[in-house]
Amino acid sequence: MTPLPTVREAGAALRSGALSSCELTQACLDRIEAENPRLNAFLTVTAEAAMAAAKNADEELRAGLDRGPLHGIPVAHKDLICTSGVRTTFGSKVFADAIPAFDAAIVERLRNDGAIMVGKTHLHEFAYGITSNNPHYGPVRNPWDPERIPGGSSGGAGAALASGMTMLATGTDTGGSIRVPASYCGVVGLKPTFGLVSKHGIFPLGFSLDHPGPMARTVEDAALMLESLTGHDPRDASSVDRPREKYSLEGATLAGLKIVLPQNFYFEKIDPEVRALVLNAAQQAESGGAVFVMGRVPDGEQLNVVAQAILLSEAAAVHEPYLRKRRADYGPDTLALLDTGRALPATHYIQSQRLRKRILGVHLELLKKADFILTPATPITAPPIGAETVDVAGELHDVRMITTRLTRGINALGLPALVIPCGWTRAGLPAALQLIGRPFGEAALLRAGAALEAAIGFHLDRRPPPQ
Amino acid sequence: MTPLPTVREAGAALRSGALSSCELTQACLDRIEAENPRLNAFLTVTAEAAMAAAKNADEELRAGLDRGPLHGIPVAHKDLICTSGVRTTFGSKVFADAIPAFDAAIVERLRNDGAIMVGKTHLHEFAYGITSNNPHYGPVRNPWDPERIPGGSSGGAGAALASGMTMLATGTDTGGSIRVPASYCGVVGLKPTFGLVSKHGIFPLGFSLDHPGPMARTVEDAALMLESLTGHDPRDASSVDRPREKYSLEGATLAGLKIVLPQNFYFEKIDPEVRALVLNAAQQAESGGAVFVMGRVPDGEQLNVVAQAILLSEAAAVHEPYLRKRRADYGPDTLALLDTGRALPATHYIQSQRLRKRILGVHLELLKKADFILTPATPITAPPIGAETVDVAGELHDVRMITTRLTRGINALGLPALVIPCGWTRAGLPAALQLIGRPFGEAALLRAGAALEAAIGFHLDRRPPPQ
Repeated sequence: MTPLPTVREAGAALRSGALSSCELTQACLDRIEAENPRLNAFLTVTAEAAMAAAKNADEELRAGLDRGPLHGIPVAHKDLICTSGVRTTFGSKVFADAIPAFDAAIVERLRNDGAIMVGKTHLHEFAYGITSNNPHYGPVRNPWDPERIPGGSSGGAGAALASGMTMLATGTDTGGSIRVPASYCGVVGLKPTFGLVSKHGIFPLGFSLDHPGPMARTVEDAALMLESLTGHDPRDASSVDRPREKYSLEGATLAGLKIVLPQNFYFEKIDPEVRALVLNAAQQAESGGAVFVMGRVPDGEQLNVVAQAILLSEAAAVHEPYLRKRRADYGPDTLALLDTGRALPATHYIQSQRLRKRILGVHLELLKKADFILTPATPITAPPIGAETVDVAGELHDVRMITTRLTRGINALGLPALVIPCGWTRAGLPAALQLIGRPFGEAALLRAGAALEAAIGFHLDRRPPPQ
Repeated sequence: MTPLPTVREAGAALRSGALSSCELTQACLDRIEAENPRLNAFLTVTAEAAMAAAKNADEELRAGLDRGPLHGIPVAHKDLICTSGVRTTFGSKVFADAIPAFDAAIVERLRNDGAIMVGKTHLHEFAYGITSNNPHYGPVRNPWDPERIPGGSSGGAGAALASGMTMLATGTDTGGSIRVPASYCGVVGLKPTFGLVSKHGIFPLGFSLDHPGPMARTVEDAALMLESLTGHDPRDASSVDRPREKYSLEGATLAGLKIVLPQNFYFEKIDPEVRALVLNAAQQAESGGAVFVMGRVPDGEQLNVVAQAILLSEAAAVHEPYLRKRRADYGPDTLALLDTGRALPATHYIQSQRLRKRILGVHLELLKKADFILTPATPITAPPIGAETVDVAGELHDVRMITTRLTRGINALGLPALVIPCGWTRAGLPAALQLIGRPFGEAALLRAGAALEAAIGFHLDRRPPPQ
């Protein structure tokens, strides 16, 4: 079972009897056993419970109880997400031994839809921190180059998907934490519209910026997973009450799509190889019938400053009670960020929130004229573990700032953003593009993403030899 | 024309030809000329424009163009509210000579509905400050005792209504600025549900707490005025998009209403005479068929602290750019508050916003069990001009804090709250009650208020001689 099947392929095989969930789950557990000591993608592996669940899923299917597309499919949960009876560390020492008594909303949904949890994936400390080098649980390693980071904070999820340890993974994205590891690992990540997926049972980072969402190996897998994650949840005050949708990709086409390719900000301070791969994908889209609108987006630097101020303030507010009691148990990077947040004045937070609304307004105007905005996902490919700065087109940049430069502003806007890989660099690292859509426009976004994915022809299992 | 007619009485007389808008407007202007030098309720009187508008209103009616219940009715606008071509000071020196080029949304609506603006009413500096003693424009005086304040910040509106200088007045309420002057002057004031009335063109104080609304001499007048003020306005981001309502009071009754009379907070630290008058009104309601539920409300002290932190922070954010350039033009009280707000950390603001949501949730549960919460509007009657402290039941209290003690928390909840007078103290000062309703429950709230007003039988023109 190398490479792993897609969810649809596995589903057909499960229902024809050609494959069992036990076999599929065992294949993932085998891969975890073989690769996790090297990659450190999982903090907790729930092998026994997974096999019991897989056995049960097989029995259900045989008995005619079909829970839908995710029935019997392995999934890994980011360890920021509470799992009943299974240790949930939030990547921290503070909660190193915490065993929640309840499932997060999205864990509950995936379980009800028949998905099989194989374990809990590694992350930055409290999904914050500065690098992938978690001070308590060590670094996660990038499957395409173990000396490099997989990106964060959902780094374990990215590495697990890329190395075939799981078919699906949950992620959370406050400044790029789904999209950055998707980009650095060559997988698909969707930050849905703010409020579409319940945050209940997920440790907050910046509560007006936090977005849980799917990570997967293909756009179709992400779409099938998203169908399970959505739906109103009164336990999360920001969960929106709107009818659940199906995300069918049938007949998805690039023809007629209107796409803005920003002439400012997104293609500045970018690795030339990444730029070339993203522009090549745009070319493919155009060949497929998409129409490009050359446009300017509102000042991304300003939006980033806004998002940063809001995140610093909200994270500091969330952590205030824990900092009071467990200050010594925080890593130095996280502590520095939280202390910075605690020093910010309320007026700064409020001005940022007001500016945020204005900048969103300009984006919404732009998205009346076009269906999507196409950008690179990250300006660079995965940097080395431990690097604090990185050279981008002849300039030195702070790794954390450059890594989230093109993603963190979108969290402040709440718009859906899909990251899909768009090629390999000469060094054998994946590059990725980001497609930004309209509020609650996930259906259109996923269809465009699927069509683009097909046009690009990227495959995790067809990496050219590094040069 | 002493006393002034109600809007309905005037409307009938205008349409029968027994009265003209010119006569009605002239009566108000005459009263302003006679009383304003003593009371200082108006900062600007627009006599000439008012008479021209009244003449036009009379001609329209004669020609068969009827703009509805407010056609030809005099109204005064709080000077925090922009009026095209008419000086709008916001009660400040910073904007002492400002002449807006546009009308605020509510000015526009009232104008379209035929109301006649007679002038701009006095207020606290920027609707903030600490006492009614505006450092730039002097104190407003209470018509029932000129050595006392009319309450604020819409103090000019309260004094103008009580002394018959206008039939209707606009107010704004961030911590009680409609309800406190209504209480101290013996008139009716409604703080509508947050988002029901557009804030466009009104200088913000605390933008998540600001509520424009009607002030009037009777509940019916306030209801007719509210009909004109509501409606979605895309220029105000917090304006809600919902169908406009009629607020008919026909057949309004107390029978069957379920009312919470809180056993905690609202009747602590209260003048015994005010307590007796409010409890007497409750008795009247019970005689009229209302059912009282003795209940506890969530901790009002905590809610007040929350509201205070949010107001200090938002006001400081709003004023930041002006403080930078015009610091010397601010009064010392306002400056002290703004500087306090600038020193608050973002985490404090955020924790307050989170707590605010939780306390609202408890109130909404309470309002599932009952229709209204009945409380005193203010713990005291109008205090003397210049007093910084006041004795309440043997304890000294800061005037500003005690004045807004029972109102400012409700701004943080966004619930509609109607203040109606409920009697005269032995000193000849009005006391008032506050009826708090469900979100967007103005129709029911105004009906209950009208029934209660009738049961109490308070009349502005039937004040017993002070003892």
